[in-house]
Amino acid sequence: MDEQTVRKRLCDVRRQIRSMNLDAMILTSPENVSYLTGFMGDDSWVVIIGRRTLLVTDSRYTEQARGECVGCRIVERKGPITQAVADIMSRAKSIRLVGVEKSCSLQVFGELKKHIKVRFKPTGGLVESVRRTKDAGEIRAISSAAAKAWQALDRTLRRLKPGMAESEAAGLLDFEMRKLGTVPGFDTIMAFGANCSRNHHQPGARKLRKNDTILVDFGTKVGGYCSDTTRCFVFGKPTRFYEKVYYGVQAAQQAAISKIRPGARLRDIDAAARDALAERDLPDYGHGSGHGVGLQIHENPFLSKIAKGTLRANDVITVEPGVYIPGKLGVRIEDDILVTQTGHKILSKDRRFNFSKSKMTILNAL
Amino acid sequence: MDEQTVRKRLCDVRRQIRSMNLDAMILTSPENVSYLTGFMGDDSWVVIIGRRTLLVTDSRYTEQARGECVGCRIVERKGPITQAVADIMSRAKSIRLVGVEKSCSLQVFGELKKHIKVRFKPTGGLVESVRRTKDAGEIRAISSAAAKAWQALDRTLRRLKPGMAESEAAGLLDFEMRKLGTVPGFDTIMAFGANCSRNHHQPGARKLRKNDTILVDFGTKVGGYCSDTTRCFVFGKPTRFYEKVYYGVQAAQQAAISKIRPGARLRDIDAAARDALAERDLPDYGHGSGHGVGLQIHENPFLSKIAKGTLRANDVITVEPGVYIPGKLGVRIEDDILVTQTGHKILSKDRRFNFSKSKMTILNAL
Repeated sequence: MDEQTVRKRLCDVRRQIRSMNLDAMILTSPENVSYLTGFMGDDSWVVIIGRRTLLVTDSRYTEQARGECVGCRIVERKGPITQAVADIMSRAKSIRLVGVEKSCSLQVFGELKKHIKVRFKPTGGLVESVRRTKDAGEIRAISSAAAKAWQALDRTLRRLKPGMAESEAAGLLDFEMRKLGTVPGFDTIMAFGANCSRNHHQPGARKLRKNDTILVDFGTKVGGYCSDTTRCFVFGKPTRFYEKVYYGVQAAQQAAISKIRPGARLRDIDAAARDALAERDLPDYGHGSGHGVGLQIHENPFLSKIAKGTLRANDVITVEPGVYIPGKLGVRIEDDILVTQTGHKILSKDRRFNFSKSKMTILNAL
Repeated sequence: MDEQTVRKRLCDVRRQIRSMNLDAMILTSPENVSYLTGFMGDDSWVVIIGRRTLLVTDSRYTEQARGECVGCRIVERKGPITQAVADIMSRAKSIRLVGVEKSCSLQVFGELKKHIKVRFKPTGGLVESVRRTKDAGEIRAISSAAAKAWQALDRTLRRLKPGMAESEAAGLLDFEMRKLGTVPGFDTIMAFGANCSRNHHQPGARKLRKNDTILVDFGTKVGGYCSDTTRCFVFGKPTRFYEKVYYGVQAAQQAAISKIRPGARLRDIDAAARDALAERDLPDYGHGSGHGVGLQIHENPFLSKIAKGTLRANDVITVEPGVYIPGKLGVRIEDDILVTQTGHKILSKDRRFNFSKSKMTILNAL
């Protein structure tokens, strides 16, 4: 990360801190820590006091922090992290009100209150509201993650064969990501046959058979940024009913994507996908129609029936309608979409990959 | 999981609930949810009211829950999870004081308080105190996870070759785990050369060279239970200094393990490892000497300089001293140890695996 990027982010976050009349802010969520310092390790917090930014870490991460951090001072703690933060606060002057992230646990909050004698204000979405708007580097990272994901999928599909278990196929896909120098952004979902209806399925011992349907929900991480995409295939010939469902889900996704532009209401995009399924007499799905994606796999904004608010330029969101018929089949199609100044751009286009050399029936490629 | 196991666990947990005068308990941590119901999915909570146990989940997980859960009622929520729990509470009678886990976030706690008009008591370690003592099935799962980990490592070492990047080698190990029907228990650490001193290193582009040292910290999961082990190798010939460090760490680990028995003080075990290094003029390490391992990769008890308390029969702990010289080398040796009635048993014995067919120098095998 370059200094200018960090400076801009810190500037935006400090504005939020000032607007809430906070004298200091303690950031405990790993993604917010990465966002403001470049540090990609764990168990480390950021403390912002006035114009100073400190990364509080321990000896396991000091070397790494020195290599990664931009625009902050690295503090290597010896004792508990709350004690180290208390020491920093006690050395600073006139600190009365300190912000703490709502994502922090009751345990941590209790320890902070015990060690630091100031007033605390739990804050929600302070850094996240800045993180929501992606800059050019972040958009490049997500696009690049998606491209690597397709490349890994392509290599995996060519190696699928009857008798291979879901867990092995998922492992193969993860391995192909690693060979491309990336890592899985989350636990890969690889489901065969009726398991595809379990929409957060954990890949298991179920073996691939001829004419099986396959659902793969997966992503990679580039520079901390995730892609999150889902594709469905048939290892052989699809049934008529599967085709009907597949094209229904595809139409639902396209209906939702076509509505994406700055100012579009989140719930209208959600409704567009569901309406398209209903028109085709296909059942509704129990999950949201999409979510923001960035340093976290699920972040603001969320597309759902009850979502409030609208899309903004430089949001990056997934669109992922599905149809699930337990015991029978499941289809979900998911892509990552950038909200541009005038409309949208699909960051996860997969046309450049030639999946056709595999023994799959590919019904769709965006 | 069998009904008898669940009944015993729930009985132990209910005793804790009663002793704290709680009318109900809300469990939000995934591991505690798994422990008491057998459910292995995410985003689901357990509510215990009197003799009733309810799993509150959503449509993504209902199918899975029906297949996995033992001894609880499955409630499929339609709206937010806090609202579903509020509905359950409002239908139950005379609920005044409700326990909430300290691991839950300020955000979730705030929503619970908004929706449910009772008094809340944050509790720490209520289920964890029961989980600490492992039963025969849990011990078998951890042993089996460790055995699969060695098997995967053995296959990986045979395929390492010069020019392979850390990330690819880590991916290969993860893939071998998947082929054996297990999953990585945590992010595999695979470090080459000087990177071994970064003791939470993320595998990167560094390529394997002849005479490189290698550090692998990895584990698999069997039935939700993790193994957690570390081994170091030389891809060729070790230097004199590396050998000195290696045997020092090995002696430190053995010194600590030899003290493991019920009643042994946690900090004495920690000190035994550090003293052994000091005797050999080797530097101290900045992390703890070990930790409990089970459904979580790090759980009670923790071995450290400031640890309070003693070991108990049926604790399962890691012992993992290390020596780190930044920019030069790093060695850590880690095994999983059961505290028996009279002493200890190493659950992660690796002697049955013949690593010698690889091109490694194996200095040690427990």
